[in-house]
Amino acid sequence: MTAEEVPDDHPRHGSLVTRHRIEEGVEKGITSKQGLVAQGRGEALDYLLGEETVPAAERAERTAVARTLLADHAVVSVNGNVAALCPQEAVSLAEAVGADIEVNIFHRTRERLEAIAEHLREHGADEADVALRGLEADARIPDLSSERAKVDRDGIYSADVVVVPLEDGDRAEALDAMGKDEIVVDLNPLSRSAQTATVPVVDNVVRAFPRMTEYAETLASASDDELREIVDSFDADEALHDAERRIREGFGDGDTR
Amino acid sequence: MTAEEVPDDHPRHGSLVTRHRIEEGVEKGITSKQGLVAQGRGEALDYLLGEETVPAAERAERTAVARTLLADHAVVSVNGNVAALCPQEAVSLAEAVGADIEVNIFHRTRERLEAIAEHLREHGADEADVALRGLEADARIPDLSSERAKVDRDGIYSADVVVVPLEDGDRAEALDAMGKDEIVVDLNPLSRSAQTATVPVVDNVVRAFPRMTEYAETLASASDDELREIVDSFDADEALHDAERRIREGFGDGDTR
Repeated sequence: MTAEEVPDDHPRHGSLVTRHRIEEGVEKGITSKQGLVAQGRGEALDYLLGEETVPAAERAERTAVARTLLADHAVVSVNGNVAALCPQEAVSLAEAVGADIEVNIFHRTRERLEAIAEHLREHGADEADVALRGLEADARIPDLSSERAKVDRDGIYSADVVVVPLEDGDRAEALDAMGKDEIVVDLNPLSRSAQTATVPVVDNVVRAFPRMTEYAETLASASDDELREIVDSFDADEALHDAERRIREGFGDGDTR
Repeated sequence: MTAEEVPDDHPRHGSLVTRHRIEEGVEKGITSKQGLVAQGRGEALDYLLGEETVPAAERAERTAVARTLLADHAVVSVNGNVAALCPQEAVSLAEAVGADIEVNIFHRTRERLEAIAEHLREHGADEADVALRGLEADARIPDLSSERAKVDRDGIYSADVVVVPLEDGDRAEALDAMGKDEIVVDLNPLSRSAQTATVPVVDNVVRAFPRMTEYAETLASASDDELREIVDSFDADEALHDAERRIREGFGDGDTR
């Protein structure tokens, strides 16, 4: 059964489509074995979250878009799982907020980088006129070990705002130390990535990206003052606490797996 | 880095060894892609549980052993993840309680069944004189779709007690409907498998099996009356509620990932 063959009326349609996409990602060489394990961790946390976008996440998503629209140079970082799960949604978001996409993976191989870039092109990156970065690797994030430090000089290295879904904690901290504003999409509000974020979005990336794209369309005509007001009134700690409370209370509330 | 190369003093030694074993399981053809995703779900739940055996699980493990020692014919069911994670521990447990092992997998192929059986032999199944079943598939569990219904007539089909770690909910319910007593090892106390179990063990199988083997040695000289008293005084619902409470309260308590 491929992702396209899951019946629309299946009670766990979203979850099953997601799982099939990630398995197809492995077959196409864009998702790693570690990516499959990470997918499972996300599934468990999303199950506890009720598999829906909670109000705190909606606020965070709107704020993330406002911050990105104010950026001088924004980059959406895409790894193997994000590419497998929502390639088109990543391209649409980058287009809507005027950001580049940088392919950036934890277990780095040339083949996988190129497979991911190709997958994004198949899902409209060229047509959307979104710059695809990550293959130059001509700059380094300070204080990170070799492979994980590699970035593009014209991409993440010089960006003032980076959108990092499903990011490793070490890298999130190192990007923060470079003074960048980070929009982190992560289902664990206690992860170092979420704790480090300027705007932590505790939501499944497959729900977060389309919603952020919608906000980008709504906020397209907002003035910089209006955008700044949205950003300034956001409280990251409160958003994390709301998500944490929801996960804790959610357990025991829902249907079983 | 292989499982053997993780430094003993690494703060997340257990978790890293486990993850490497499951990845090696994929390379040996015994763990499926779906198994890797399931491993991730388990990791997230174990993280919430504090990655330790809680008191309710200890009671459940002791009870599980007592029930198994009272069995006419006990079988430990082993799937691809269990085989990858703790092959030797599965063999030791089966030997200690006088049970057979039956290889039983959700995504069934002949190659994977045989790879798992071979892996168990490499980890001492023959020396321990544990009967290895699951390759005959000459009987069927009623009311299950074709591939998942296959079992050995001299194995799970005729057993009165089955130990089913990481079992699918449909199969757990179908085995229950056959009147078998099920010992379920599962990190989600709300899963249908755990809810169906005669004795639900909410613990990581890599911790549960060695501890159950120890209990088997302690209880080896107990009389049937003593064993029956242990079984009769166990409250499955209470054990599940204790685990559920622990997971809910544990979130927000520990270190981040």
